[in-house]
Amino acid sequence: MENLVIGIDVGGQSSKLGVVNAKGEILEQCVISSLQTNLNDYLNDLSGAIKDLIAKTKNVGEVKGIGIGAPNSNYYKGTIEYAPNLKWGYVDGQPTIIEFTKLLSGMVGIPVTITNDANAAAMGEMAYGVAKGMKNFVMITLGTGVGSGIVIDGKMVYGHDGFAGELGHVCIERNGRQCNCGLKGCLETYTSAMGVARTARELLASDKRDSLLRKLDPEKISSKDVYDAAKQGDELSLEIFNYTGTLLGRAFADFVKFSAPEAIVIFGGMAKSKEYFHGALVKSMNDNLMKVWKNKIQILYSSLKESDAAILGASALAW
Amino acid sequence: MENLVIGIDVGGQSSKLGVVNAKGEILEQCVISSLQTNLNDYLNDLSGAIKDLIAKTKNVGEVKGIGIGAPNSNYYKGTIEYAPNLKWGYVDGQPTIIEFTKLLSGMVGIPVTITNDANAAAMGEMAYGVAKGMKNFVMITLGTGVGSGIVIDGKMVYGHDGFAGELGHVCIERNGRQCNCGLKGCLETYTSAMGVARTARELLASDKRDSLLRKLDPEKISSKDVYDAAKQGDELSLEIFNYTGTLLGRAFADFVKFSAPEAIVIFGGMAKSKEYFHGALVKSMNDNLMKVWKNKIQILYSSLKESDAAILGASALAW
Repeated sequence: MENLVIGIDVGGQSSKLGVVNAKGEILEQCVISSLQTNLNDYLNDLSGAIKDLIAKTKNVGEVKGIGIGAPNSNYYKGTIEYAPNLKWGYVDGQPTIIEFTKLLSGMVGIPVTITNDANAAAMGEMAYGVAKGMKNFVMITLGTGVGSGIVIDGKMVYGHDGFAGELGHVCIERNGRQCNCGLKGCLETYTSAMGVARTARELLASDKRDSLLRKLDPEKISSKDVYDAAKQGDELSLEIFNYTGTLLGRAFADFVKFSAPEAIVIFGGMAKSKEYFHGALVKSMNDNLMKVWKNKIQILYSSLKESDAAILGASALAW
Repeated sequence: MENLVIGIDVGGQSSKLGVVNAKGEILEQCVISSLQTNLNDYLNDLSGAIKDLIAKTKNVGEVKGIGIGAPNSNYYKGTIEYAPNLKWGYVDGQPTIIEFTKLLSGMVGIPVTITNDANAAAMGEMAYGVAKGMKNFVMITLGTGVGSGIVIDGKMVYGHDGFAGELGHVCIERNGRQCNCGLKGCLETYTSAMGVARTARELLASDKRDSLLRKLDPEKISSKDVYDAAKQGDELSLEIFNYTGTLLGRAFADFVKFSAPEAIVIFGGMAKSKEYFHGALVKSMNDNLMKVWKNKIQILYSSLKESDAAILGASALAW
């Protein structure tokens, strides 16, 4: 009988769970929705899925711990705090503090550890992916929102309070787009999947050119639609990704000035569109770097299967 | 006979040297100009000053090592690289790479270690100053330029290449003021002593109000002039510091999103004007922070005598 752990990647849309063995192999996995508007409903679904996975692997080994990657999480306190992108994280219309590890371990009877979802992805990438062997890198997750995990000298940066690495909320445009976090002009409002859709809506309104995107209801346009149109050579869609890459590059240049990483690793759904924003990103980053760093910082994309890095990273927490 | 070290703080205007004992006491110190335009002239003056200090303390003990804090320095390589604010760091009008520790130790016959001047100040502040006992803080030096030293988990952050912590060059204003580093809109161009003087010149040109500063030659206005006028209640000068504090606060908010420090410590000549920019800084920082950090990050000012923190910090390198 082996020792096993469960790694969970909590996202704004869905949560992915996997049972992982000591070799880092995912033995069983499943996905549940994260769109519940009530915390108890979400926790019931989650603990149900955990119990199913435990039942499915009970002949292989025993699940000794659970590691979770979730937005706005605090490694030190086991909490999720003021997460704007989790529908079940609100009380009376305001994001609140949830004692997540305490609640969940109470329901499943197994120790639970939590960290920022991007930290978990960084740990997965460092153990099994493109950042293997790297001591200094920054992980940027481009999904529903924009998250980050910072590794310095081979260690995750948690900061004084456990909340370090909220690079999705650095200001990229003074008095820019309103962000769910309450601030304006956050990187996330431009370069997340939602941000790309906002750029599409803005550009469709301000630009007169024809575009495949005009066939769609502007309110329902997604980053996937922009990707599909770019694939067919749609000029406006290519411009949207070019703009996205340019803003990412500006932000990345400032991240380099902080921790001088060997590489910045991009992860998440938006990475699929890399061929359409990578060139603009690299140019813009180098245009905004001093001589000591120009053309020296690698931009890498996660090599792990989309959900695996986060599940594996979260599982690494549990060991 | 005691073991001694020499700590050296290399600035754009002057270099301060001190002989330090194991208790962190500065036994002897001196200052030389940094305005030489030729590297050999500077090194001759510096090694001369070192030899004088060694002679003065030869009855107390032996100098075993030299630690240096200098702008644009590389701890790993012992170099100063492309330092725009050091007049002797240029070759053919372009900042260049200097093998500083090798050259100096060759001249004085003592091992030499170098780091970023702001890193040295941070080490001094952590050992003897307001950051004593802190594990996570960011040091910002507001002098001729703007430098930074980042401490995470009790350790200096050097990054992959030894150049981490160039926060004076994050972009605070897109297409803003031209910086010596080649980029535009760097924090340094607004919030260094030179930046304050630039703000004064801009405001005097664009604003019609009377001001004590109008009695001065605009080209020669210094941050000290603005400070003196502010002390006398000069409205325009107060506005200049208010603007400086607002920009600093915006930048600090983004630094917090990176490493979630317990405090940001301000050091350098500009700290003298803190009463005129502190309020605007704190307000602007909190306006640009998410709820988890609002009103939680301390802004502190160096408690050490102006040159001591850098000398003591540099000496800590040598031990």
